[in-house]
Amino acid sequence: MTDRNSSPLAPQAPLATSPFSSEGDDKFHDECGVFGIYKHPESAAHTVLGLHALQHRGQEAAGIVTFDKNQFHSHKSQGHVADNFNSQPIIESLPGDSAIGHVRYSTAGGGGMRNIQPLFADLASGGFAVAHNGNLTNAVTLRQLLVSKGSIFQSTSDSEVLIHLVATSTYQALQDRFIDALRRIEGAFAIVALSKKRLIGARDPLGVRPLVLGKLSDSSYIFASETCALDIIGAEYIRDVEPGEVITIDENGLHSLKPFPVQKPRPCIFEHVYFSRPDSLTDGTSVYKVRKHIGRELAKESKVKADLVVPVPDSGTPAAIGYAQEAGIPFELGIIRNHYVGRTFIEPSDQIRHLGVKLKHNANRGEIEGKIVVLVDDSIVRGTTSIKIVDMVRQAGAKEVHLRIASPPTTDPCYYGVDTPEKDKLLASRMSIEEMTKYIGADSLDFISIDGLYRAVCDADRNPDEPQYCDACFTGEYPTHLTDKNQHDAPEQISFLNESNSKSK
Amino acid sequence: MTDRNSSPLAPQAPLATSPFSSEGDDKFHDECGVFGIYKHPESAAHTVLGLHALQHRGQEAAGIVTFDKNQFHSHKSQGHVADNFNSQPIIESLPGDSAIGHVRYSTAGGGGMRNIQPLFADLASGGFAVAHNGNLTNAVTLRQLLVSKGSIFQSTSDSEVLIHLVATSTYQALQDRFIDALRRIEGAFAIVALSKKRLIGARDPLGVRPLVLGKLSDSSYIFASETCALDIIGAEYIRDVEPGEVITIDENGLHSLKPFPVQKPRPCIFEHVYFSRPDSLTDGTSVYKVRKHIGRELAKESKVKADLVVPVPDSGTPAAIGYAQEAGIPFELGIIRNHYVGRTFIEPSDQIRHLGVKLKHNANRGEIEGKIVVLVDDSIVRGTTSIKIVDMVRQAGAKEVHLRIASPPTTDPCYYGVDTPEKDKLLASRMSIEEMTKYIGADSLDFISIDGLYRAVCDADRNPDEPQYCDACFTGEYPTHLTDKNQHDAPEQISFLNESNSKSK
Amino acid sequence: MTDRNSSPLAPQAPLATSPFSSEGDDKFHDECGVFGIYKHPESAAHTVLGLHALQHRGQEAAGIVTFDKNQFHSHKSQGHVADNFNSQPIIESLPGDSAIGHVRYSTAGGGGMRNIQPLFADLASGGFAVAHNGNLTNAVTLRQLLVSKGSIFQSTSDSEVLIHLVATSTYQALQDRFIDALRRIEGAFAIVALSKKRLIGARDPLGVRPLVLGKLSDSSYIFASETCALDIIGAEYIRDVEPGEVITIDENGLHSLKPFPVQKPRPCIFEHVYFSRPDSLTDGTSVYKVRKHIGRELAKESKVKADLVVPVPDSGTPAAIGYAQEAGIPFELGIIRNHYVGRTFIEPSDQIRHLGVKLKHNANRGEIEGKIVVLVDDSIVRGTTSIKIVDMVRQAGAKEVHLRIASPPTTDPCYYGVDTPEKDKLLASRMSIEEMTKYIGADSLDFISIDGLYRAVCDADRNPDEPQYCDACFTGEYPTHLTDKNQHDAPEQISFLNESNSKSK
Amino acid sequence: MTDRNSSPLAPQAPLATSPFSSEGDDKFHDECGVFGIYKHPESAAHTVLGLHALQHRGQEAAGIVTFDKNQFHSHKSQGHVADNFNSQPIIESLPGDSAIGHVRYSTAGGGGMRNIQPLFADLASGGFAVAHNGNLTNAVTLRQLLVSKGSIFQSTSDSEVLIHLVATSTYQALQDRFIDALRRIEGAFAIVALSKKRLIGARDPLGVRPLVLGKLSDSSYIFASETCALDIIGAEYIRDVEPGEVITIDENGLHSLKPFPVQKPRPCIFEHVYFSRPDSLTDGTSVYKVRKHIGRELAKESKVKADLVVPVPDSGTPAAIGYAQEAGIPFELGIIRNHYVGRTFIEPSDQIRHLGVKLKHNANRGEIEGKIVVLVDDSIVRGTTSIKIVDMVRQAGAKEVHLRIASPPTTDPCYYGVDTPEKDKLLASRMSIEEMTKYIGADSLDFISIDGLYRAVCDADRNPDEPQYCDACFTGEYPTHLTDKNQHDAPEQISFLNESNSKSK
Repeated sequence: MTDRNSSPLAPQAPLATSPFSSEGDDKFHDECGVFGIYKHPESAAHTVLGLHALQHRGQEAAGIVTFDKNQFHSHKSQGHVADNFNSQPIIESLPGDSAIGHVRYSTAGGGGMRNIQPLFADLASGGFAVAHNGNLTNAVTLRQLLVSKGSIFQSTSDSEVLIHLVATSTYQALQDRFIDALRRIEGAFAIVALSKKRLIGARDPLGVRPLVLGKLSDSSYIFASETCALDIIGAEYIRDVEPGEVITIDENGLHSLKPFPVQKPRPCIFEHVYFSRPDSLTDGTSVYKVRKHIGRELAKESKVKADLVVPVPDSGTPAAIGYAQEAGIPFELGIIRNHYVGRTFIEPSDQIRHLGVKLKHNANRGEIEGKIVVLVDDSIVRGTTSIKIVDMVRQAGAKEVHLRIASPPTTDPCYYGVDTPEKDKLLASRMSIEEMTKYIGADSLDFISIDGLYRAVCDADRNPDEPQYCDACFTGEYPTHLTDKNQHDAPEQISFLNESNSKSK
Repeated sequence: MTDRNSSPLAPQAPLATSPFSSEGDDKFHDECGVFGIYKHPESAAHTVLGLHALQHRGQEAAGIVTFDKNQFHSHKSQGHVADNFNSQPIIESLPGDSAIGHVRYSTAGGGGMRNIQPLFADLASGGFAVAHNGNLTNAVTLRQLLVSKGSIFQSTSDSEVLIHLVATSTYQALQDRFIDALRRIEGAFAIVALSKKRLIGARDPLGVRPLVLGKLSDSSYIFASETCALDIIGAEYIRDVEPGEVITIDENGLHSLKPFPVQKPRPCIFEHVYFSRPDSLTDGTSVYKVRKHIGRELAKESKVKADLVVPVPDSGTPAAIGYAQEAGIPFELGIIRNHYVGRTFIEPSDQIRHLGVKLKHNANRGEIEGKIVVLVDDSIVRGTTSIKIVDMVRQAGAKEVHLRIASPPTTDPCYYGVDTPEKDKLLASRMSIEEMTKYIGADSLDFISIDGLYRAVCDADRNPDEPQYCDACFTGEYPTHLTDKNQHDAPEQISFLNESNSKSK
Repeated sequence: MTDRNSSPLAPQAPLATSPFSSEGDDKFHDECGVFGIYKHPESAAHTVLGLHALQHRGQEAAGIVTFDKNQFHSHKSQGHVADNFNSQPIIESLPGDSAIGHVRYSTAGGGGMRNIQPLFADLASGGFAVAHNGNLTNAVTLRQLLVSKGSIFQSTSDSEVLIHLVATSTYQALQDRFIDALRRIEGAFAIVALSKKRLIGARDPLGVRPLVLGKLSDSSYIFASETCALDIIGAEYIRDVEPGEVITIDENGLHSLKPFPVQKPRPCIFEHVYFSRPDSLTDGTSVYKVRKHIGRELAKESKVKADLVVPVPDSGTPAAIGYAQEAGIPFELGIIRNHYVGRTFIEPSDQIRHLGVKLKHNANRGEIEGKIVVLVDDSIVRGTTSIKIVDMVRQAGAKEVHLRIASPPTTDPCYYGVDTPEKDKLLASRMSIEEMTKYIGADSLDFISIDGLYRAVCDADRNPDEPQYCDACFTGEYPTHLTDKNQHDAPEQISFLNESNSKSK
Repeated sequence: MTDRNSSPLAPQAPLATSPFSSEGDDKFHDECGVFGIYKHPESAAHTVLGLHALQHRGQEAAGIVTFDKNQFHSHKSQGHVADNFNSQPIIESLPGDSAIGHVRYSTAGGGGMRNIQPLFADLASGGFAVAHNGNLTNAVTLRQLLVSKGSIFQSTSDSEVLIHLVATSTYQALQDRFIDALRRIEGAFAIVALSKKRLIGARDPLGVRPLVLGKLSDSSYIFASETCALDIIGAEYIRDVEPGEVITIDENGLHSLKPFPVQKPRPCIFEHVYFSRPDSLTDGTSVYKVRKHIGRELAKESKVKADLVVPVPDSGTPAAIGYAQEAGIPFELGIIRNHYVGRTFIEPSDQIRHLGVKLKHNANRGEIEGKIVVLVDDSIVRGTTSIKIVDMVRQAGAKEVHLRIASPPTTDPCYYGVDTPEKDKLLASRMSIEEMTKYIGADSLDFISIDGLYRAVCDADRNPDEPQYCDACFTGEYPTHLTDKNQHDAPEQISFLNESNSKSK
């Protein structure tokens, strides 16, 4: 899901503190995580835990909808799951044995409450709740059509299109309406939905965004964006929901449908590089292992004679371990991270603004002084953090600083549910590697090749005719139509409300 | 507007502290006040003041929508206007030179935020905001129809029906769609609406709920539920919006339409008894004068030989003054009111629960001891407060306590936007005056006659064939169809969401 | 109690919404109310109710200390009692069968928490809590002495001097230490104190500030600033604590001490004019009756040929009733008060600032138009509100506006626990009655004479040699030494901390 | 500083999320960090940053006092520095060019506000603020003495004794009073203090708690608990404040005093094991290097034939790297930490309580399955977390789990400002290593020897006659008198107040 137009009232984008990122504002951000559970007496509590495990996929807001055989219940909140869904009264306000939940990255602010998912509609057939990870590339076009026929939108989210398509579908059965709606949308989606009778999980035909199926204690099925959400509740990983598959779970068990024309899957390769948690399996393989493998490929492609390999914590760590093992150079924590970073730490004044990066990191001078250092990071977006990190390491006395990046240069924005800057803000779209090296101030800079990345992920080079993954951010080759982008190059016109709320005692 | 089903998560109905009522839980409550202003550079600030003056019509929540020629802006809040719309940043978040606002009585709670008006929709023709005072008696029926065609409702408010009727109307122009919608609804409404081009005020064909038109500094028109909202901003009262009239105001000035079949007006007579502020004009006449007149009629009908006339503060005061003047008995403040009553004061324990009434009132023993007292109150609903007040006056040493009520016995509930108990909770529906006298513990009890009330309000007896007012709460004669009531005697089935929100720092 | 120096961080003095005042910022304010109860199983709940009844004596903050035979417990809060002491958990956090409480007027702000009473000290003999109404006129002098000997002050309140005097007294028994401390202080005080063994009530030798004794259900004694706090809990009024009396209550019952040299009492006459609630007894006589009597004396002294008598609500009402009765002119509510005034209502902009007074009041045009009006108010301080009220009544069409004041001109500040402006801010200290009439814009203006006031209060003229009351605000004759004022005309130098607090989730 | 008796109203000790600990409730906790800066135009902002860098030493509350040549200013808050001192208004409320600050671990709760340091007193010589890390072992004894002489304590903190000793000292000059006070206290202290004229840093004669001196831009001196607080503001590390040294800094520069009888220093050895940040220098040596050295010594003493070395994140990581390097076994992130842990995450129900540990950690199954694993942790306190971690690793398929601990068995509590359980709650005080191995469920368990630890820290074995460090938690040999412990074995009797606060809008 994405916001079409963010509220001007919203505070400036808070720095999200991703535990696996080195600097909130210079990473791509996955925009959502989803979770669903069917037929478990503690469905809400398990959804809370599942969303907590998926928190890295969306730190701004979270929501849960449950169904208790009689009524739907919802709690939504801005902020972290662990801070907002951790009280017994909230768990008790979410009764029922099936539930879906959603965590969300995106601009926040008072008005943002209406954009928090799951979305809910009271259809003629009863309540229907939907949580969506991904982004629809024809949402604006569909929205205009729906509004012209009398649909009233409550949010600025692309995901709301889906629920209006279901509401206005001419099919009779809810399941048919849902599939009718899915066939009309274009883009990337991993969806969990809840009706009075069933839990549904659906993944777009290319499988761009991940979705896995799990099982807990025989009778209870689970959908989640990543396997780490199964681990936290002790559930068993069964398999990935397949690209283009719609799985419905009801009293009679699990049913798999394939309602779309068959296409070659192209899951997002960046999930392996950065988005997924290192302890998750993506496409059935260990993310941590893949990242170490990337580090090893990187060491093969771009070796340096150095004294130590230092990860940019925490996201660069697995690749740095792989690099160090392959290169036979000691792995050391040359940068120490301060985990106590408030979500909106304001640098106290102009004079000390340059200290900013030190709020989160400090160079471990004892290890670095006088040494040749290989710094390993997962990616470079704008380059702003890289400059500060390299400088900090140099100030701590490093003799040389060589920066190695565990992904190819990111040259193009993502339209599939990842928060990326405009193309011209991407450092690699504007500069050669030589220029970037100079800009960042490193002694040398290198990126893994696209083929090296593919080898680490799937043991094969990239197939240029039929790429095995969506790698548009590295190649600019988008695997779907981009209807809205092509039709709406003018600023999008949703005349929506600037909204805020308050509440006195 | 009314909620069809209140959230089970909502706290128990807080005691609303109406300044003109003696006890929050034993009065009829008007459910809303509306305000609109067109073409004034300080539209938001004036709407805040106007809603503040209308606060007695709805203390639970308030909302404002403005339009700045480009975009609509909204702020909504639970709680009082003076506590939630009093900061410069909030005023500044509501730019534009036209605005509408709404204050609301009703069950509160986290989930209630979505029921706060004005309602807003992003129609194909642009944004459209609506604020409604009254209640639609065919809302459930219309809602079912709309949902079956794909409309998705966001609130449990009857008023939302209106906006979906506008959105799905087959007419082209927004104004025609709005009138098309008004023709399909049944019940009581005083509505202000705001589009990109115009401010609209509309009143139902019977004129049950009030709506007045005012003017400020030549160019700026205003709609408001009562004239006190004109006074606070120094605006001039022009006239009442007529029953069945739709007034639109745009660049070209004011236009009056009468789109409904003509009917004899029947405005709510209880506005004169209790709802309206004493400093307002209702139907062009002073509410304070009418209430004193009621007191005088009451004295004529039901004189007592007494030492002093004591109002039940504050709503009984004007009638008590009239009674005292007519009867030639001294008017004294025999009951002193404590204005510092928290909105949710919990009586600290069972043992001292009987002290409850004293949180708000204390008998002025020095005046009352040994005296024959006429207590004057505006109405009796359940009788719970009357019992306590009479007892308190007696405990303070009154020789006799004679209770006189400035309205006829309230025997029937209201379906036109007034919060009333079920019929069997209304004391007068279950008891004769003799039984009530005994139940309440007064030495005598009397009510003004229905004809006496009419004489005070319009200088004429009630016309039984064509009553001049809606007096259904006294007579059970409802002036409109009650479609939902007749079709939906089973508990209404809107399978809506139990919703709550939170927000961590 | 008073603050010596208010925090520069504190927000500008919020407009306190006294229910008996017409405008928060143009009245004298009593600065505190006290309450104590001994040996009642619901001591905290009763103290909450008692403080609620005394809320008009201090709306800014409140505190309660209880003792449960083992430990002392405290809850303090900024804001109203009804909003902050109304939850069961707070009542339960205050166990024990004896309690004292305090409500406080004064500058608020984060740092103000430490100034909220009761003050508490862990003395060698055990815990000791004190609540004080009044003001010590030698507090600065004593504080300097105590600090030089090693006492560390935690607040800026004059009252803290008392507790350090107790702590450092050379007497052995706590009661002797307390009396030793009382003998060293100068000024006005009504004090309740609580130790492990006893509840103490003490009143200064002149009895400037009030304190009454009551009884509940045989065994339980109560101290309170006014009798209305007895009424709310159904307690019996026994008598006033006498000027110069110290009453201790313990297991063995009630003991009265008179530890001071005997002086003629001089209780504050302004308690009758404005401070006390109309339903209280002050010096054993009904405040409401006295105020009506003042109105009658005023009518005798300063009659007007008029159409109606209109009170400035609510504090002018009893005097207006008396005036109307004496003068034989109809009493009418010509000004209607809006009770929904937020505590910090900010006028939305400069352009509409002049509307300010209408936030609280609206003229009842129907009664006033074309009439000669006598407006009755209780006092004039700066005159700012009077100007607006007179103008509002005139704008509503009054033919003539005659303002009558139920107290003599206030020419001098109070040093005994009443918040008054500097002398040169008092209108009557700078202008003659003629000048004031013109300044305020009334057709005529008159005040009751000082002898007229005395006649209303005690049926006798003022005795110029030995005045029966403290009337310094009208006469400038202060009944005590003013040690600090004479020694500290330079700005007082307490180098105290500017303090603020916050708390993240 | 420590609380003598915690409030019964306080919530159960929240789980502090130390970024370097594996589980909040099973570690020793350093109880405070201090910071002071003299003569810098941005003293408050730098103190905020310094405290942020010291946050791991006290996560519950923080406070800052500044002096602006005229007045002292303070802000205190519960919660993290980054969440509570990050706004421009708060920085602006702390003007001045000198400042001291404090972060605090300890039980929180409403009443805790008064225990937040710096403490402040308005002495005869002017304001004086103190921040203390450590614990006084004769505080109760001194407190009783001071109270008996009339001192009134405001907190339950041992540190308040110090400020009353200063206030009541018979010396004249403030500096002499302060040294007089220091000579009377016993135990561990690293103190920064601020008066109108100087900044003072003081360290107890044994140097148990650390304190360093730094310099920023020529003129500005800094005290801090650790060098990481110098790094964050770009200050230069000069040297440690020496054990028994009192350094005063004023207009004339820096002055060193040694007012105590000389003793052999015995700094806390646990600072090296766990408390200090790995990027700090303690006693001039790199904490990270020492921890890796401990890991290497541990590998020498207790080698295992294993497939991989896995740290218990994050505190076990440096020792694990050292262990892996020495043992020649691959270092792998076999446990992944979830950083999004709310401060008060409540496990949603009994049924899923066993999932608790997974809120923070997940085993990285891909690395662990089928492998022999060496787990490295820094210490074992109660053993509760170790059981869960070992079980989690085993459930993830490890063939064998060998636990190695980078400190000797912790057998005794600390009385010098570290939060430790009672002796009988310490696992190692009750069990042999064999019993612990079985209890925890590891295949083997071993601790580094005390001599091994000394070798890693100071390249020499422990000198049993004159130990070079305070190692009481491993040996039970306390280097100071424990006056209170010996005199007050009965429960301590401070009859203090149970206090809470609230604030209505």
